[in-house]
This record gives sequence, structure tokens and C-alpha cells, in this order.
Amino acid sequence: MQIAIVLYDRFTALDAVGPYETLGRLPDAETVFVAEESGPVRNESGNLALVADRTLAEVPNPDIIVVPGGPGPLPLAADGPLLTWLRSADAGSTWTTSVCTGSLLLAAAGLLRGRRATSHWLALEELKRHGAEPTGERVVTDGKYVTAAGVSAGIDMGLTLLGRIAGDTHAQIVQLAAEYDPQPPYDAGSPEKAPAHVVELVRTHSGVILT
Amino acid sequence: MQIAIVLYDRFTALDAVGPYETLGRLPDAETVFVAEESGPVRNESGNLALVADRTLAEVPNPDIIVVPGGPGPLPLAADGPLLTWLRSADAGSTWTTSVCTGSLLLAAAGLLRGRRATSHWLALEELKRHGAEPTGERVVTDGKYVTAAGVSAGIDMGLTLLGRIAGDTHAQIVQLAAEYDPQPPYDAGSPEKAPAHVVELVRTHSGVILT
Repeated sequence: MQIAIVLYDRFTALDAVGPYETLGRLPDAETVFVAEESGPVRNESGNLALVADRTLAEVPNPDIIVVPGGPGPLPLAADGPLLTWLRSADAGSTWTTSVCTGSLLLAAAGLLRGRRATSHWLALEELKRHGAEPTGERVVTDGKYVTAAGVSAGIDMGLTLLGRIAGDTHAQIVQLAAEYDPQPPYDAGSPEKAPAHVVELVRTHSGVILT
Repeated sequence: MQIAIVLYDRFTALDAVGPYETLGRLPDAETVFVAEESGPVRNESGNLALVADRTLAEVPNPDIIVVPGGPGPLPLAADGPLLTWLRSADAGSTWTTSVCTGSLLLAAAGLLRGRRATSHWLALEELKRHGAEPTGERVVTDGKYVTAAGVSAGIDMGLTLLGRIAGDTHAQIVQLAAEYDPQPPYDAGSPEKAPAHVVELVRTHSGVILT
């Protein structure tokens, strides 16, 4: 089983590392970070670089695809090499997944047409414009497509899919090993729960805040 | 304000990226990944590399130090350059923090003697042997030392310290932007909550599971 985690300029690091530390613990699986070119790929802040060990061309047939998000309306919206690879790799994948606005890339590649899916809460309308049917759930499975809400939701998505593939016990082992017993100091993780002025600030200044 | 996130061979990626995506959103702060040598640093699985943009020597006086953990009894336990840097950088830091077994490195550097601190639940005894006073809390603050429990606890630690430094509203903005509204599919994130057979499997095979 091969898991390809896709990197591209201005991706969000936790979107990639959350599934990596959960789904990536699938027994007997090989996880590989891929990008259009191999080498360091910078995140949206520019002060973090993850290394793509292989090019997209070198990993044509992964069993599982993981697409992280990034800020902005839609990075790489144009029909570039990444979208071409996504279409081709998806044709043979067992699972195609995304975190945050990664679902916009899947949708832009035409893979979520008419499918239930999710994204960062600020991007749900955009997801709809690309033909998907957005839901408010944190992790959405429709056929082989598993999409997660914003950034940190990739951890929950990774554990969910890990349990589906490797069984509950293995997923629980990974959860316990990562001591994933979340205790956020605030209850402000969704627009329904956060104070109204906080929601407004994120809505108004998301471009500034997220980069 | 300068935040130094320390990398070393066989670190755990989420330990570093959790605080990066939370505490690293501190306004007007510069976050820099540092290691003994600059360049890619591989995690414990070997299939992920984060880039250290600066050497330890180039970042002698960070305001905030973040030390991730890694598997094994105590990576770099010997009194190497990293421990020497930790002692020296800590002398001038405002906050010195760790995630998971990163606290063992702080303790091995002599920085947690007699202090309340935490670590991965499997490492609490080892932490005690290094002179700290382990607690079962997820995030522990004792003076300027802020330590977090295993792996994913770095997200909670990062938000907690962010709120302390920049105020509740800013921390809530970052939480909402990262959509940190955790919904793990299982309730198995601590040894008290996980099924007994899962705890036993992690305890017995932690070296295999965690790497």
C-alpha cells in the first residue's frame, strides 16, 4: 500500500502532517511526500519547508492520495500539472482524501462533482461552486472520497480512515501512541462555537491571519 | 520576538508542527526551525524531512524555545551540542517549552530539576529519573517552562501559551482559523480512556508502533 501526500507551494503544514502521523501509521504502508519537483516545498508562511522526496511523475499509482490545503481562493486553480496528476492518480486510487481547502483542488480536478464533501468553513461556498455538495461535518466520506474540514481536522480524518482500513484496535493504538486526547484551552474551534467577534475577525481578515 | 523550533535526527513531526501552527501565529514573531546543521532533518520514520533553515549557533538567543520529542529512551542523551545549546539559549529565553519526550531533553540539560513537568505518558518515569516532578496534566506550566504530553498535546500547549502571551482573542482566532474543534473517532487518547488491551499493546510494542 502506497500513500502519497501531495505538497505544493504555499500548502499548510498541519494539513499534511496530521494525516501523516495517523493514516501514515497504516501497517505495511509506504508513505511518500510528492510534489511537481522533488526537494523542499515551502508552506504559506515561508518559514517551514517539508521535503518532497519524489516527483509526481515518479509516483503515478498511489493507493491513497492525501491533498492538504493552503490559504487563498484556490492555489493552483489553473489546470496545471498537479490537477492533471490528481485526475490520473485518482483513476487508480483506492482512497482519495483531502484536508481543508485541499478539497477545492480535488473539486477543481473534477473529482467531487455531485459528491458530499467538506472543506475549511470559509471555503464551503467555493467548494459548492466547483460542483460538490458541502456538508458541515468534520470528516465526510462519499465513496472513496474522504474530505476533512479545516487544518486540524486532518488528524480526525486520518484516524477515521485508518480505522476503516486497519480496524478499530490499530487506530486506537495510534491514537494512544500520539496521546490524542485533545483539551483545547478554548471552545472556539468552529464558527458555531467561537465568540461572534472572533468569527467576524477571521472572516474579515482570513488572508492576513492564515498566512 | 523569535521562536526557535529545534529539530534533530529522529524527531516526531507533529510534535514540532503542532506548536508551529498555533504558537507560531504569534503576531510580529519570527519562527525559525533550527538544528545542529542546517538542511533537511529526518523524522523517526525516515520518510519525512523538515528543513532546518538555521544552525543552532546562528540562533543563540531565541525568546521562545520549542523542543519536540522523538521515540526511544532518550535521543541525544549524551551531553552533545544540542544540550549545550539548550542550556545556553534557556539562560536568555522568556519561555522554554517542549512536546512529548522533548521534556526529557530539557530535563537532561538540567533545566527541569524540581519542576512540575510532563511528557509522553510512557516517559513519565524517565522524566522523574531526570529530576523533574511529573504530572498527569496535558499542559504543565512551571515558571517559564511549559511542557506538553505526547505528540498531539503540542497543539493544546501552543494555543495555551499563545493565549498567555497574545491574549485570549488572538488564541481563539488562531483556533478558529485552524478549525481546531477536535472530534476523534475513538475515545482512546489516554491510558485511562483507551481499552486495556490497547494500552497493553502500546506499552509492550511502543518502539515498534512509534517508529
